[in-house]
Amino acid sequence: MSGNTIGRLFSVTTYGESHGPALGAIVDGCPPGMELCEADIQVDLDRRRPGRSRHTSQRKEADQVRILSGVFEGVTTGTPIGLMIENTDQRPRDYSAIKDKFRPGHADFSYQQKYGIRDYRGGGRASARETAMRVAGGAIARKCLSERTGITIFGYVAQLGPIRLECPNPEIINDNPFFCGDPARLKELESFMDELRLAGDSIGARINVCARGVPPGLGEPVFDKLEAVIAHALMSINAVKGVEFGAGFAAVEQRGSEHRDEIAPGGFLKNDAGGTLGGISSGQDLLVSIAMKPTSSIRKKGATVTRGGAATEISTGGRHDPCVGLRATPIAEAMLAITLMDHYLRDRAQCGDVDRQAAAGARPAAAARTARG
Amino acid sequence: MSGNTIGRLFSVTTYGESHGPALGAIVDGCPPGMELCEADIQVDLDRRRPGRSRHTSQRKEADQVRILSGVFEGVTTGTPIGLMIENTDQRPRDYSAIKDKFRPGHADFSYQQKYGIRDYRGGGRASARETAMRVAGGAIARKCLSERTGITIFGYVAQLGPIRLECPNPEIINDNPFFCGDPARLKELESFMDELRLAGDSIGARINVCARGVPPGLGEPVFDKLEAVIAHALMSINAVKGVEFGAGFAAVEQRGSEHRDEIAPGGFLKNDAGGTLGGISSGQDLLVSIAMKPTSSIRKKGATVTRGGAATEISTGGRHDPCVGLRATPIAEAMLAITLMDHYLRDRAQCGDVDRQAAAGARPAAAARTARG
Amino acid sequence: MSGNTIGRLFSVTTYGESHGPALGAIVDGCPPGMELCEADIQVDLDRRRPGRSRHTSQRKEADQVRILSGVFEGVTTGTPIGLMIENTDQRPRDYSAIKDKFRPGHADFSYQQKYGIRDYRGGGRASARETAMRVAGGAIARKCLSERTGITIFGYVAQLGPIRLECPNPEIINDNPFFCGDPARLKELESFMDELRLAGDSIGARINVCARGVPPGLGEPVFDKLEAVIAHALMSINAVKGVEFGAGFAAVEQRGSEHRDEIAPGGFLKNDAGGTLGGISSGQDLLVSIAMKPTSSIRKKGATVTRGGAATEISTGGRHDPCVGLRATPIAEAMLAITLMDHYLRDRAQCGDVDRQAAAGARPAAAARTARG
Amino acid sequence: MSGNTIGRLFSVTTYGESHGPALGAIVDGCPPGMELCEADIQVDLDRRRPGRSRHTSQRKEADQVRILSGVFEGVTTGTPIGLMIENTDQRPRDYSAIKDKFRPGHADFSYQQKYGIRDYRGGGRASARETAMRVAGGAIARKCLSERTGITIFGYVAQLGPIRLECPNPEIINDNPFFCGDPARLKELESFMDELRLAGDSIGARINVCARGVPPGLGEPVFDKLEAVIAHALMSINAVKGVEFGAGFAAVEQRGSEHRDEIAPGGFLKNDAGGTLGGISSGQDLLVSIAMKPTSSIRKKGATVTRGGAATEISTGGRHDPCVGLRATPIAEAMLAITLMDHYLRDRAQCGDVDRQAAAGARPAAAARTARG
Repeated sequence: MSGNTIGRLFSVTTYGESHGPALGAIVDGCPPGMELCEADIQVDLDRRRPGRSRHTSQRKEADQVRILSGVFEGVTTGTPIGLMIENTDQRPRDYSAIKDKFRPGHADFSYQQKYGIRDYRGGGRASARETAMRVAGGAIARKCLSERTGITIFGYVAQLGPIRLECPNPEIINDNPFFCGDPARLKELESFMDELRLAGDSIGARINVCARGVPPGLGEPVFDKLEAVIAHALMSINAVKGVEFGAGFAAVEQRGSEHRDEIAPGGFLKNDAGGTLGGISSGQDLLVSIAMKPTSSIRKKGATVTRGGAATEISTGGRHDPCVGLRATPIAEAMLAITLMDHYLRDRAQCGDVDRQAAAGARPAAAARTARG
Repeated sequence: MSGNTIGRLFSVTTYGESHGPALGAIVDGCPPGMELCEADIQVDLDRRRPGRSRHTSQRKEADQVRILSGVFEGVTTGTPIGLMIENTDQRPRDYSAIKDKFRPGHADFSYQQKYGIRDYRGGGRASARETAMRVAGGAIARKCLSERTGITIFGYVAQLGPIRLECPNPEIINDNPFFCGDPARLKELESFMDELRLAGDSIGARINVCARGVPPGLGEPVFDKLEAVIAHALMSINAVKGVEFGAGFAAVEQRGSEHRDEIAPGGFLKNDAGGTLGGISSGQDLLVSIAMKPTSSIRKKGATVTRGGAATEISTGGRHDPCVGLRATPIAEAMLAITLMDHYLRDRAQCGDVDRQAAAGARPAAAARTARG
Repeated sequence: MSGNTIGRLFSVTTYGESHGPALGAIVDGCPPGMELCEADIQVDLDRRRPGRSRHTSQRKEADQVRILSGVFEGVTTGTPIGLMIENTDQRPRDYSAIKDKFRPGHADFSYQQKYGIRDYRGGGRASARETAMRVAGGAIARKCLSERTGITIFGYVAQLGPIRLECPNPEIINDNPFFCGDPARLKELESFMDELRLAGDSIGARINVCARGVPPGLGEPVFDKLEAVIAHALMSINAVKGVEFGAGFAAVEQRGSEHRDEIAPGGFLKNDAGGTLGGISSGQDLLVSIAMKPTSSIRKKGATVTRGGAATEISTGGRHDPCVGLRATPIAEAMLAITLMDHYLRDRAQCGDVDRQAAAGARPAAAARTARG
Repeated sequence: MSGNTIGRLFSVTTYGESHGPALGAIVDGCPPGMELCEADIQVDLDRRRPGRSRHTSQRKEADQVRILSGVFEGVTTGTPIGLMIENTDQRPRDYSAIKDKFRPGHADFSYQQKYGIRDYRGGGRASARETAMRVAGGAIARKCLSERTGITIFGYVAQLGPIRLECPNPEIINDNPFFCGDPARLKELESFMDELRLAGDSIGARINVCARGVPPGLGEPVFDKLEAVIAHALMSINAVKGVEFGAGFAAVEQRGSEHRDEIAPGGFLKNDAGGTLGGISSGQDLLVSIAMKPTSSIRKKGATVTRGGAATEISTGGRHDPCVGLRATPIAEAMLAITLMDHYLRDRAQCGDVDRQAAAGARPAAAARTARG
């Protein structure tokens, strides 16, 4: 209830502060009988890991995950999966510069208000370091989804500040530090980031995430529409300021005759809906896009107040990402995977014996539903 | 779990189909001791009600709400509040035109896939008629929030298709059929809608919603960040395709030095964050904006398939809103109210004895926290 | 969260006071495609109904249930099922005798303390009248369980005050006002109850409930053991003071060699466990027993205090059951049905693709698992 | 949802198998500002720890708990508290004797059925070792309850097989291996247990648990009655077969004039209710009693079947408790503490601003309500 759990049937509960001894998670509800080892999780953690290029935080963390339960002889048993990553790069630091000041754009002020106390070391629980456990939980969800439903998920950076990016070549996304799918633009991105770092400033980004092979029928029609729970999951990532599906905000200027996706015997004719109808997956690709604000921790000085309310200035040095959006792609993918996994189980619970083939008659080919297990 | 409940501590569970005998809700968790009568709820229902102008659906529903429990001698008792609205305008109709076709942009196809059966009369559960009970539950939340925290909530249409609208005069919002806060633009809106109706088409809209007087401290820091749960609530409204907070998608192009809201002894210097920091309310206004797609039910013909998979065409006559966004303002306000009420109680549960005055020292004036009761 | 909902996947949320306009429920999560009409529910409501013999409350209520949603053309659609019963026998009464006194054994004092207000008319929400909606929800669960898993549920009065009762003849349980399965004891029960009524007193009872045909695998191993969730459900019924499974409290004096149920190729050799092992159903009959306290509303005078704290006396006339246990059998059955239905869906969600036949090899015949649908 | 979490607002989620690398828990929802260190938790873990006398399992575990998050400078911050105990006594063993047999009275058969796989090493997740984390979570709840409400909780063994025990001297409960409150009976218990061990058998037990200083108003009136949620929590402990409150099963033979607790200006005249009225705490002591079955792991041979379904025999050697009830006292206390802590927060959420003094007038002294913080 204090918001450290996501998912109802497939759930991930996390703990951990930026400079505490460890980060951890309990992944509950994973179906039994799936092969799982630490390497399955590590691959996604490594994609999120800081310090992989000069364009992200220079914090050095191996982010080595341990599975502490729920797996026996290499196979999930249906009992909760305990995960842990020890924090290794907890530098002894002098926090006097931020201990008694509220950093603009950070959670310092609001945590202090809510709890009357805050762990100011590296942002404590509000640090993006918390997202490591999202990625770990997401890796398990992703593997399960892939094996049981055929769903695959991928994301990429669609905009970095003023630079808009297509994704002509998804294969290269994980081979460059920008999660960019267009090899022709990498140089431009490098230059932009280098200038930004020199300026001591940061920049926003847009991430697109896509789930392919989603069977029709996932999502609950009223308050838990599929896009509502996905928006919840994605908006819960640090720094996200907006979420849109399919045509998204562009739908404001569309006419109905333009927006609605017509249907032919071979399937939907386009996908402005973004993969859902009435809150339930239609079998089309799920298309989601998020806006990420620029990092608030920058070298450039900013005005703020002390805990005592006096005017002061702050400049944040240290190991910060100049664009939090850059490492957000695996996090967004993870949140989408957790949400879809949860709804795959929720749908199976209530509707597991619906004969979809019979019910839908000769349904549009594009929406052919994969088995629900 | 089938998604007909929203809220954890202050929760609203609804039932009802467009052409069933009644719509209903159970509002659970309302604090005891609050004066409440049907008129308190009716005022918001009347704002959402169809048929109030030629620009909305001509369905005639009194939407008269009855309180069936939870109130004794005019005061809430802390027990669940049962609400009901009888459907009065259930015209006997010939549904053969839509019974065996999937209307593009509608939930027909996905419901049929998920459940193997669908109530095709007027869209069944997927009808926007379902939102009446959101508004009823929201009215109770809004009253409680107002009396116990001083929070006030209002929304307005910020864009209607290509027409962008400011809100210089919030007082007039409820006095015109467009929920528009700019009296100088009403004529333009009327003309636009009249032309649209003649064309047998529909249009998208953008709604802005604002909560004022929100005490700092609401929201949970990780998966249930305040903006995440609000995004969930708003994205669950029929036809919403996007949600953004504060600068929203504009943050993609902002630099950190531009986006972060600096703080002075008198308070925050601006509000690009939209009222939260680290997922917790900061005391600033909550600023949310949603994109609504154009109505899919239009007279213009569209291609689709039959349940048997054969190509066909469909044209939807009847009593439909040419802009679902027009009646969405009270619905969005209601969802925001329910969410804030829930988090007001959640915060009180865990942090009800935090001495915020002491903790925050001389906190910025703009964020002065009202009593938590 | 205020405790008016039971079940996670198959859930029943209720509202209503003894003397309010109506009682209602929302049954959410029911699988689609099941035939359902009001008569399916009415049959169980009629078993619970007051006024059927001189041995129960003389309140006259038809308890006629209406289905307001979730059923289309006689079949469940997967959307929430709204139910309502109008209260018809709300006699205008003079409540001055109990308005300002706390009836011993009643919720008057604790409600007043918790909420600062209470609906004193007929006990308000604390009235056993609330259980009508449990029975209504249970009837839906029972039908679904029966059709999809073959589970059948029945209960009977196993002790009435000092009179212990076997159940040699389950067929007669519903044909006598005592829910007694032994025709030879009916006279004795009649005499006992007649004397009790004359004495202006009341008596406790024990109810046994049994579920047959429960497939192995239901229940979650740690905090939501099947017996834990069943205990929760049964202990939530008004007046229940104890719950036990299988050998129950007799296990305190048993040795391990005596208690444990040995297994032979043909199945378990006995059932002291009561149908679960490690919190998970074993395929044996679920055997549960509950203790019900005597009605607190009796003609015999008792000492109490006024709201002002002054000593006074109270004697409760009116239409009360001299043994609440007598009408509790259908309520206990309903709670067991709701819980099993919920866990049937929970098991299907996580383990729906476990090949139980293969996994268990030639499993004991008695535990042969029925299909999970 | 897979049942590894208990509590809604104050929640404990656990993981861990008997012979896995570690046990762990995430305690979420703890109010901020409470002093907490590992020693606060260790004291209760040490009471539950095996190997403290010859009468319990000889497994050697230090059960040393580590706090991994949620505490900063010795004070809770309101963020989730990660806990971990490493398993140190994982003896390499030969499991061939139990790998392919279902031990009678154990979860072997039901786990195999449910999941199609089981971790047979030491019972895996079904081992009582899992309860260590209940005790750890309970220690945090207990400290918080004590400091904020004055509630104190204690339990004792009230019956060991045929030996019924009073508790004239609660101070000695933790000083003897029997959690017995009567020093005159210790010899008798020792002899009984020594004989039992020689016989290679085990015995059941009854544990009484009491919470003192419970403020009136805790518990939710319908499905989450205080006794229902406590029954849930206690019945979820391994080996518990029954739960009763106050008079419990004895109420079956009571008359209403005998059972109901009359009230005088000085308070309730007795406590057959066991501390609740209508599911809500009355301010009297909460009195709960549980039945624990005898350990199923005994040296005495028993009949069973192999996974292949063939008849066989089994005798369990090794390090087992001859009376699981003996170490259950701290576990039962922990579960009661977690439940009360959860409901303390739930009550504060909804009713935190009820003026109980004013509402109840000069309420009975025995029920004087302590501050809700």
